[in-house]
Amino acid sequence: MEGTCRIIPLGGLGEVGKNMTVFEVGDERIVVDAGLAFPRDEHLGVDLVLPDFGYLRERGGKVRAVVLTHGHEDHVGCLPYLLRELDVAEVWATRLTLGLVKSKLDEHGLLRAAELRESDPDGEPIQLGPFRLEFVRMAHSIPDSVAVVIETAAGRIVHTGDYKIDHTPIDGLKTDVGRLADLGNRGVDLLLGDSTNAERPGFTPSERVVGEAFRQIIPQRGGRVIVSSFASNVHRMQQAVDVAVQAGRKVSIVGRSMRKNANIARNLGYMEVPEDVLVRPVELDDLKPHEVLILCTGSQGEPLSALTRIAYGDHPAVTVERGDTVIISAKPVPGNELRVHDAINRLAKSGAEVLHQEIAPVHVSGHACSEELRTILSLLRPKAVMPVHGEFRMLAAHAQLAREAGVPSSSIVLAENGSVVELSPEGVRIVDRVEAGVTFVDGLGVGDVQDVALRDRRRLSEDGVLIVITTLASSNGADLAPPELIARGFTGPDELLAEMREEAIRVLGECLEDDVTEIKLLQEHLHDAVGQLVYDRTRRRPMILPVIVEV
Amino acid sequence: MEGTCRIIPLGGLGEVGKNMTVFEVGDERIVVDAGLAFPRDEHLGVDLVLPDFGYLRERGGKVRAVVLTHGHEDHVGCLPYLLRELDVAEVWATRLTLGLVKSKLDEHGLLRAAELRESDPDGEPIQLGPFRLEFVRMAHSIPDSVAVVIETAAGRIVHTGDYKIDHTPIDGLKTDVGRLADLGNRGVDLLLGDSTNAERPGFTPSERVVGEAFRQIIPQRGGRVIVSSFASNVHRMQQAVDVAVQAGRKVSIVGRSMRKNANIARNLGYMEVPEDVLVRPVELDDLKPHEVLILCTGSQGEPLSALTRIAYGDHPAVTVERGDTVIISAKPVPGNELRVHDAINRLAKSGAEVLHQEIAPVHVSGHACSEELRTILSLLRPKAVMPVHGEFRMLAAHAQLAREAGVPSSSIVLAENGSVVELSPEGVRIVDRVEAGVTFVDGLGVGDVQDVALRDRRRLSEDGVLIVITTLASSNGADLAPPELIARGFTGPDELLAEMREEAIRVLGECLEDDVTEIKLLQEHLHDAVGQLVYDRTRRRPMILPVIVEV
Repeated sequence: MEGTCRIIPLGGLGEVGKNMTVFEVGDERIVVDAGLAFPRDEHLGVDLVLPDFGYLRERGGKVRAVVLTHGHEDHVGCLPYLLRELDVAEVWATRLTLGLVKSKLDEHGLLRAAELRESDPDGEPIQLGPFRLEFVRMAHSIPDSVAVVIETAAGRIVHTGDYKIDHTPIDGLKTDVGRLADLGNRGVDLLLGDSTNAERPGFTPSERVVGEAFRQIIPQRGGRVIVSSFASNVHRMQQAVDVAVQAGRKVSIVGRSMRKNANIARNLGYMEVPEDVLVRPVELDDLKPHEVLILCTGSQGEPLSALTRIAYGDHPAVTVERGDTVIISAKPVPGNELRVHDAINRLAKSGAEVLHQEIAPVHVSGHACSEELRTILSLLRPKAVMPVHGEFRMLAAHAQLAREAGVPSSSIVLAENGSVVELSPEGVRIVDRVEAGVTFVDGLGVGDVQDVALRDRRRLSEDGVLIVITTLASSNGADLAPPELIARGFTGPDELLAEMREEAIRVLGECLEDDVTEIKLLQEHLHDAVGQLVYDRTRRRPMILPVIVEV
Repeated sequence: MEGTCRIIPLGGLGEVGKNMTVFEVGDERIVVDAGLAFPRDEHLGVDLVLPDFGYLRERGGKVRAVVLTHGHEDHVGCLPYLLRELDVAEVWATRLTLGLVKSKLDEHGLLRAAELRESDPDGEPIQLGPFRLEFVRMAHSIPDSVAVVIETAAGRIVHTGDYKIDHTPIDGLKTDVGRLADLGNRGVDLLLGDSTNAERPGFTPSERVVGEAFRQIIPQRGGRVIVSSFASNVHRMQQAVDVAVQAGRKVSIVGRSMRKNANIARNLGYMEVPEDVLVRPVELDDLKPHEVLILCTGSQGEPLSALTRIAYGDHPAVTVERGDTVIISAKPVPGNELRVHDAINRLAKSGAEVLHQEIAPVHVSGHACSEELRTILSLLRPKAVMPVHGEFRMLAAHAQLAREAGVPSSSIVLAENGSVVELSPEGVRIVDRVEAGVTFVDGLGVGDVQDVALRDRRRLSEDGVLIVITTLASSNGADLAPPELIARGFTGPDELLAEMREEAIRVLGECLEDDVTEIKLLQEHLHDAVGQLVYDRTRRRPMILPVIVEV
């Protein structure tokens, strides 16, 4: 069906994270973004969360291209896992995104897994089979972000990627409202738009506001100044560096990912730091506190990050003392609040003044608020809208904005991960759904941790485990030794252990009297009786594991 | 030492929660507040967290009085546990607080454990041994909150309790700035002040602001309106009821704690709901959606609360559909963000519009911001200040405000839980520390869950447990059966189980060859070898439990 394009989000809808969307015309397909998510507390022991791209695996064949909108982990972090499993011809990304992605693929030994191509917002459209692609500059919290325009026989689709309308971005590269207006005039059949801040009224302030705050704060401080932000926020780092230079401070970049990103950004010309301003962390000892500004990772309170180690007095190169100032130039991602608060409290205990986004204008969002979304809707005047990139409440708020902008309700698609959305000359609608869950990365294993393991971990985490070991003679089923009990993560009154042992003996005796000797049945009886006893005495439900050894 | 008073915070410093402070003159003591805290994620399986009042237990003797500033759980929730273990003569609290506390003590069968006395902000001072107490009305997010003035031979202490300076509170009972000014004129030697919002600039808006928002929102809605707030926020409920009455809606109160609190508040005259306005949840079916306003619990996304059950379509009496409006009239306590977001997303999926504090003025804090703290410092002009009620960053911000108000640094005490602070005519200083940790309530057990159990639960929660069972002949140590493996919460490649079994056999064989037959040693070897193999293959570290059965 040449006249239709199928759009299949595999991640990023109903959540903030692991963005990935498939575009298909006939048997040809491209993928926009390949991101990961970070585990939630209930994902006990999981390291990373990937979109389940089983759909692509099952379809087989070649993926024409993976097209990346920008270099954030929730848009590129799944790329190595995708390239390892699928036959992908090309990866398209802007220059900085490509630089970041190359370093990542290099670490995974996957530099040759696909052809890496540079997308250019100022260049000519590119044709990939039935897909004609253009890129439009968008301002975001990482440089070189783009929207992707996808033209097929079914019509023109604009995928905004992540953006805000910043009229005064640090690199001067604004969201290209002119190009967007032009696209609107040419006609947009479907808009896939970033919904992160759709609920929030007004406009997101310009990144420059944070620079103003830095200029207010940093020059008047006497001690060390530490600025913590996301390692990918190149403009944030640049603004801190600029103020440091003006204030006559040296700059040290601390934390592996920030050093790596700063190197890539400097090499590619996205960040300017005079060579004589930079000092290595080991050289900090030679400088007085008021002579340095430290840029570091850890703005989310991540356990092993630079800022957390500094806060806990455990960093090899950086200490904090009375008179120092710490600026946490980021907002906690939901779920990280307590960790960030812990870091702030520790730093405050060391005597530092800690400025964070709740009490000072030291952070702005990278995502457009509702008035900006309205602006984009006015510029593009799309025939149909499919909100993407956000929890359901955000998608719903974006849908409401589209309705208010005059898009008919029947042309607004509230899709989920796995929805198959069809764009045709008749319009847009959900026609099918495919499997689109999550894949957990845990240690070296990708996808082998399943719900049952997580359920067990949850159970274990709540009340621990009780193992009841009994030995039976396989000949006649007589018990050969008194039951043994092992408890981990479970506590109860001292006399309970003896009670449980007696209960186990009683249950076994009863079973044997009734000629119940099947191991499974014996285990079940033991499990139920001991579990009930424990619950009655403690109101706790540890996992009970009856082990019956037949000799 | 008649001229000194010792102040010992046992909870509430370096945290928000479980407030409890001991005041001692010689061998006489009173306790201000007896609160609890809710467990954090790392307190796996714990139900409640209490202050460790081992200090009071060890001192023995009678506690003259527990004095409660207001009825919030973080100020009164520990009272039953305290009364069960200590000899307390009297509990003093204002009328509503007493009503709430009575109901709680009744549930615990402790109504007769101490004499319950009503404190009256308009009454005469009361003398309890060396302590002369007065109460001052303070506005807060629950009615009948008071500050406590404690006079001893050592001087006059003001403990603010929780407060904001609301000039237009719903009950007309403002923070009594006149009395505070009068105390300032008489002379205040030490201020213990609420620090919760000390970091935040400006003033906390009046509770009335929320009523305005309700009046803007509720009358123009067509469907059901559901307002979720803390069950103790009587004024919030009152404002919602008032708007419902104006809009001609019936009111139904859903959720056990909210029904209980509303009953107590109505019986004591703190809440007015016309009898014909109230409908029971089971009667909701007889009314059209636009005829009802539902007040419910669950503003923190608590798993079994009314709002969560409504959001998941699991409530027996309340459903939500397109056209309904849900107002979450509370702010997530740090750590509860994701749960609240989940509830919002679920409700949005049902088609409801969800208004919450991030996007609409449907909540105000109950705590004073920095300009209000400055006002209190100006009114009281305390000689010394001890910030209380807050994480360290909040206490530090409060200390900074005190310095800026002219209190000398040497008279500002940044104490911790367990600090022994001495007030004497010479001033105030930390002279000692006592044990002051946490006591966990888990099921029926109080205080029996220790760090080692939590560490085990943490370990189990991350990678699960692997149990390796081997059977040895006790006569000669020969292994009688192939090792058996049980895994829970752990997953690895299929072939790993066989590998582990072989490794266990190999290790046992080696040990027996080397004449190692001591069970402990065999277990250690098994543990290390299997653990290493699992880590090498999976990069996971499940808890390995070797079980050796001697027959």
